[in-house]
Amino acid sequence: MSSNSDPGGLAHRPRILMGPGPADVPDRVLRAMAAPLLGHLDPGFLEVLDRVGEMLRHVFGTRSARTLAVSGTGTAGMETALANLLEPGDAVVVGVCGYFGARMADIADRLGARVVRVESEWGDIVSEETMAATVLEVRPTVVALVHAETSTGVLQPVASIARAAKEAGALLVLDCVTSLGGCEVDVDGWGVDVAYSASQKCLGAPPGLSPIAAGERAIEKVRRRASRVPSFYFDLEELSRYWGPERAYHHTAPAHLYFALYEALRDVLEEGIAARIARHRRHHEALVAGLSAMGLELASRAGHRLPVLHPVRVPEGVAEADVRRQLAGEHGIEIGAGLGPLRGKVWRVGLMGGSCDANHVLVFLAALERVLRARGVRLPESGAEAAAAWYAAHP
Amino acid sequence: MSSNSDPGGLAHRPRILMGPGPADVPDRVLRAMAAPLLGHLDPGFLEVLDRVGEMLRHVFGTRSARTLAVSGTGTAGMETALANLLEPGDAVVVGVCGYFGARMADIADRLGARVVRVESEWGDIVSEETMAATVLEVRPTVVALVHAETSTGVLQPVASIARAAKEAGALLVLDCVTSLGGCEVDVDGWGVDVAYSASQKCLGAPPGLSPIAAGERAIEKVRRRASRVPSFYFDLEELSRYWGPERAYHHTAPAHLYFALYEALRDVLEEGIAARIARHRRHHEALVAGLSAMGLELASRAGHRLPVLHPVRVPEGVAEADVRRQLAGEHGIEIGAGLGPLRGKVWRVGLMGGSCDANHVLVFLAALERVLRARGVRLPESGAEAAAAWYAAHP
Repeated sequence: MSSNSDPGGLAHRPRILMGPGPADVPDRVLRAMAAPLLGHLDPGFLEVLDRVGEMLRHVFGTRSARTLAVSGTGTAGMETALANLLEPGDAVVVGVCGYFGARMADIADRLGARVVRVESEWGDIVSEETMAATVLEVRPTVVALVHAETSTGVLQPVASIARAAKEAGALLVLDCVTSLGGCEVDVDGWGVDVAYSASQKCLGAPPGLSPIAAGERAIEKVRRRASRVPSFYFDLEELSRYWGPERAYHHTAPAHLYFALYEALRDVLEEGIAARIARHRRHHEALVAGLSAMGLELASRAGHRLPVLHPVRVPEGVAEADVRRQLAGEHGIEIGAGLGPLRGKVWRVGLMGGSCDANHVLVFLAALERVLRARGVRLPESGAEAAAAWYAAHP
Repeated sequence: MSSNSDPGGLAHRPRILMGPGPADVPDRVLRAMAAPLLGHLDPGFLEVLDRVGEMLRHVFGTRSARTLAVSGTGTAGMETALANLLEPGDAVVVGVCGYFGARMADIADRLGARVVRVESEWGDIVSEETMAATVLEVRPTVVALVHAETSTGVLQPVASIARAAKEAGALLVLDCVTSLGGCEVDVDGWGVDVAYSASQKCLGAPPGLSPIAAGERAIEKVRRRASRVPSFYFDLEELSRYWGPERAYHHTAPAHLYFALYEALRDVLEEGIAARIARHRRHHEALVAGLSAMGLELASRAGHRLPVLHPVRVPEGVAEADVRRQLAGEHGIEIGAGLGPLRGKVWRVGLMGGSCDANHVLVFLAALERVLRARGVRLPESGAEAAAAWYAAHP
């Protein structure tokens, strides 16, 4: 490559990240990304890992020593959970009401498991009754469920499904990618055997790591396996030998991502988990007040709406992608497209971590209003004004 | 967690990274780690991915469109290569003369392949004759070889093994984790079907990404598979749908790691690949001159020494780990311990990417000299002085 084909230095302007994640990253966290690099066995770095593990235990609500972060994105956590617990021929019951439930089923199928899907319409939750009945009938090795379905914006109730899993002697895997740090998650209290998340959503770090917590029953199952875990990179026992006192080399941990997660978790605990959940709830309500005023609807089932991700129905006749492009180009605001059956039908608007505050709500509503009005869409009221009024009424 | 248990902000001083990787990161690359975050489908980010792919093709020496980086460390690249090419029952011949060859064999075994190991002593290369003969006899699906064995510091000749693989109709997987960017790598010229590397060695970026190049024959094999690729996260076809024009969502790419790899690859191409290889060779020679003057030996076989990683034999009676600790504590210099049969017997000293210059060579030799003399080790000559003389004689 000759020097005149040098693509040039990076030169992009900041975005306002209000899609399905990543979300805006607090300044302290971003600065940690450029801290001096440490080796993966440096005592200073191992100390960072220890603290990350401790802080993650608080956030997940677990006492399990096997709480760590996988050096990959949320899907890496999903694969870690399923690849360690499932052996070829094992049955797994998967709740599918959106893209990520379907991805869990896909990964389980690749692992050679016998996959039983319990499906619902996209926008609805998985029926607790059907799921519990199926679990009791199939008596699978694993029950897999998405807590917060990022593709549709619903929050799945877990309690009765967890009870059924326990009764059937099955292990419960819970995808908390979009809920952890923004919604209540209580791994030990709910009886979840393996939970995983992602750094770039409500935890407020950049993407690249997948926190995971595995309880005793899960580890026992891993130890009882007849076949080897098919992945070395995702092998929980190997990972635990690196994260635990043995400090056995497993992989060259991407130090900066752990530095950033460390600072992000400090932020979470400084704010307090309950206060953080309340913040996500509060701005969700303001956003919904604004969207309602504009006559816009959510595609997620009322009563089960995820406060951190909003599937906003695209009004009749409006070109979905053009609006997203205009928001990005003229306002620097990123929102997400719909996936699967919701493609072209919804915008996905996130209020996660550093992107969850009044300024984000107000600027998004005002910018969307401007873009829609310019396209001739008639809006009953101003969304930004309604949200401002909501904030005034809820100090 | 109450606020008084806050572990405090990150506050570590820079290290001088001269172990088996990560290596020191140039300033421009480190600054890219704190650039504003972009979403994984942002047009500005997709442009970065395109340029990273183009630059990687130059560095790998391949025209393959399937040249990308996996969002995981070098082991993730290893697993991607093997998990896509191997199906249960497939035969694979693996060259094992160190830790990473053994890891390839381990991963192939987990995937259910029939693994035939061709072993050599640690410190030696894999015998080309034995390897070629085994390949022609077994006629495996895959031949797997480590180009630069980071655990022992040898550079494996590839040509005759590649010829045997071709003759046997086998696919050749080459681990270039420690060679790419510091030693000659010519994927298309050598007939390598899948090569992978890591961001944090001679390419000069922080850890977290694994560049990978897969040729046409490899992709055909993936398409002909009878069974599904057991991993979704590492599925090459799925990754290609994201990296290619379809831009299908696959995972939330850790944008900052790609920003850093982008800037690191610009550095590589600005310096020029041939000049960069010559630089690694040059400082290797200076280091070896210094070590020889100190009476220190390498555990790697003469004639096959890797210029970027030096397994220095620990002198009789010297406490291996104490020296490393003292170098780290008093000089901020990180070097690596031995692995496997070389544990306690060698120090692993890297000269990779940003850690490969005269200052690193000189400060390391001088600091090691100081630490060894303080422990009563008698050194025939000064290593730093000898290296300085070498530089003076080789301007």
